[in-house]
Amino acid sequence: MTKPISVTFLGGDSGDWRVEKIQRVKGDTLPTVDRIEIFQNSFLSPPPSIWALRGTTSNLRYTTSAEATRLGYAQQGLGRRDATCAALIPIRKNETWWSLGQDERRQIMEESSRHISIGLEYLPAVARRLHHSRDLGEPFDFLTWFEYSPENSGAFEEMVKRLRETPEWIYVDRELDIRLTR
Amino acid sequence: MTKPISVTFLGGDSGDWRVEKIQRVKGDTLPTVDRIEIFQNSFLSPPPSIWALRGTTSNLRYTTSAEATRLGYAQQGLGRRDATCAALIPIRKNETWWSLGQDERRQIMEESSRHISIGLEYLPAVARRLHHSRDLGEPFDFLTWFEYSPENSGAFEEMVKRLRETPEWIYVDRELDIRLTR
Repeated sequence: MTKPISVTFLGGDSGDWRVEKIQRVKGDTLPTVDRIEIFQNSFLSPPPSIWALRGTTSNLRYTTSAEATRLGYAQQGLGRRDATCAALIPIRKNETWWSLGQDERRQIMEESSRHISIGLEYLPAVARRLHHSRDLGEPFDFLTWFEYSPENSGAFEEMVKRLRETPEWIYVDRELDIRLTR
Repeated sequence: MTKPISVTFLGGDSGDWRVEKIQRVKGDTLPTVDRIEIFQNSFLSPPPSIWALRGTTSNLRYTTSAEATRLGYAQQGLGRRDATCAALIPIRKNETWWSLGQDERRQIMEESSRHISIGLEYLPAVARRLHHSRDLGEPFDFLTWFEYSPENSGAFEEMVKRLRETPEWIYVDRELDIRLTR
């Protein structure tokens, strides 16, 4: 099923996920909030919140068919009972990145940075869902939501650290790291 | 400049472009209207209309850097004084297309269908701007807007015919062809 899912992350007082910390990795941060509510695929107006970040799932943008097959075998869905830790990592990339050709972005992302391959190493421990925001006129380009168990939080930290050290991250000009539990 | 431009095509009674015909190529058509108004990058609500199709310009999704350079040299912008003919071609592709890997879609689109190469042959006569709609929850996936002079309308017909005969078009499950003059 490839139909895009529209998702709004609402920072405020309500929601299943309690915010543990909002870490500014690069660029401006967002106001501190107690909870995040995930408002999905609704034609209703979202409830009031202190801030709201919107995105949609989409088709694969860089992943090849062979890579998608490997990911498909290894990954598990969101909402696993023991996955009580989550991270929401909003990222914006700079104009240089967005003006590159498709081949150049793929080259940097995978052939040089191994982004897809690194993510694959942490499956099925870390479940993830990528939301695209750039074409919605949002302040970030991507919102990635991760879920994992407390036992896998060391693995998650390692994965995030490795990704941030890749050549791809040179193009990231704003990044937050929001950690949550439920 | 790669910042997405949000565009709404409003079918109704007003606007610079007069609708000559709305041709149903595949799937459901839209109500006949007299004019189309192009409402761009505005935070205001669009004026009333009979129908509205929304999209955003975006980064390149399939085009390589080398291809983008060739296109960049050859193409001209919208709004040329003698380009008094236009076409708005809304297209939706099927679920099979969207579930393919990035490599498979590129293979079909360019290596097999020569989509980018065919378009290049008709530059600078035909100016175009592609808008992405799928992630906005719209009824079509793409809205392509073309502008050309009356002298180049034969070339435009030929280009459209050639593209519709490619393997890529097997994946198109809804298409309209709206022709306009101003």
